[in-house]
Amino acid sequence: MARGTFITLEGGEGSGKSTLVRELTDRLTATGREVLATREPGGIPIAEAIREIILHVDNTAMDPLTEALLYAAARRQHLAEKVLPALERGAVVICDRFVDSSLAYQGYARGLGIESIWEINRFAIESRMPDLTLYLDIEPEIGLSRLEAGGRTKVDRLDLEGMDFHRMVREGYRKVAGMFPERFVTLDASVSQQDLADKAWQYLSDALARL
Amino acid sequence: MARGTFITLEGGEGSGKSTLVRELTDRLTATGREVLATREPGGIPIAEAIREIILHVDNTAMDPLTEALLYAAARRQHLAEKVLPALERGAVVICDRFVDSSLAYQGYARGLGIESIWEINRFAIESRMPDLTLYLDIEPEIGLSRLEAGGRTKVDRLDLEGMDFHRMVREGYRKVAGMFPERFVTLDASVSQQDLADKAWQYLSDALARL
Repeated sequence: MARGTFITLEGGEGSGKSTLVRELTDRLTATGREVLATREPGGIPIAEAIREIILHVDNTAMDPLTEALLYAAARRQHLAEKVLPALERGAVVICDRFVDSSLAYQGYARGLGIESIWEINRFAIESRMPDLTLYLDIEPEIGLSRLEAGGRTKVDRLDLEGMDFHRMVREGYRKVAGMFPERFVTLDASVSQQDLADKAWQYLSDALARL
Repeated sequence: MARGTFITLEGGEGSGKSTLVRELTDRLTATGREVLATREPGGIPIAEAIREIILHVDNTAMDPLTEALLYAAARRQHLAEKVLPALERGAVVICDRFVDSSLAYQGYARGLGIESIWEINRFAIESRMPDLTLYLDIEPEIGLSRLEAGGRTKVDRLDLEGMDFHRMVREGYRKVAGMFPERFVTLDASVSQQDLADKAWQYLSDALARL
């Protein structure tokens, strides 16, 4: 088993994950630890090539199960090439989205079934689950209005989904929380960035002391 | 459940699969049935794009589990886009290699584990297993010498594997046979093409009468 600590951040659109990744990375780096902040596909050429197939506009004939397998393949490669070597070195890895995103978005909100998506991802990550998952819980309305207020101009496919979809994602995360109580922590992300970072840091410090 | 009949052909290098596919297709077509003879990735653009990633020479960093997931994704897409619609129309589909190739080659011969490869493929094919699988069993030495005698000039990666690997593949197929006795038929492929075709035709006719 790898010596490092594997932390994942999860949450809906506008929940504040990217900001929190930066904040936690800064605090961890200040303690002298090696930190790797990453997100899939993480600049891994094979994983990027897989993502290109998924996102290619011509691929409208893509079957939902094909897509799920491709996401799992890209995840596996990012894990094998970037995350696992860092954990072997003893680093703290902070990953913006991981397996729980697939469970909540594809498994639950898209209706493929959490169990099916879990089966396939269990294989992909070969039992290297996160040591701690921080889930930033927020009302979809608030999250999306934050994105708008932030003046984000690049709108992606997910932003265009209806509010019902985002509510389903949130419900999906709640089910995932029930599946993995030992590593899954739900944080109220409607508070200030500072308060959220303080709370997250507390859980992270506890985990680092324990692991 | 689809109305058609799904037949797969399996076997090591030089076992005579391609010749048998042609022979069975001719005989079936003569009976007035719609026949689809295919092999993965089967000209499906998404599946071809996935194969390109797998075979790309620069992808030396590819993790074995990533590769297995990509093969399963390409299989899923070929199945969804080409095989299932043909079965829905009531056609007989003859597919040169399918899930058992992954079980024997990747699961057993490459050591990833038949159970793991089965888990992931079970998801990919969503329980649409072949109705009948004809496995062309042959001593690896004989199969490979046939390829040479046939003057095949295009040597692929698998041809270059050592004899031990091909023996492992054969052993893998034997284990697969034990897992799926209800659909898996082992045929002695060292006999003449004519005798092999007659024998295969017998099993195929029985299956068509039964299903």
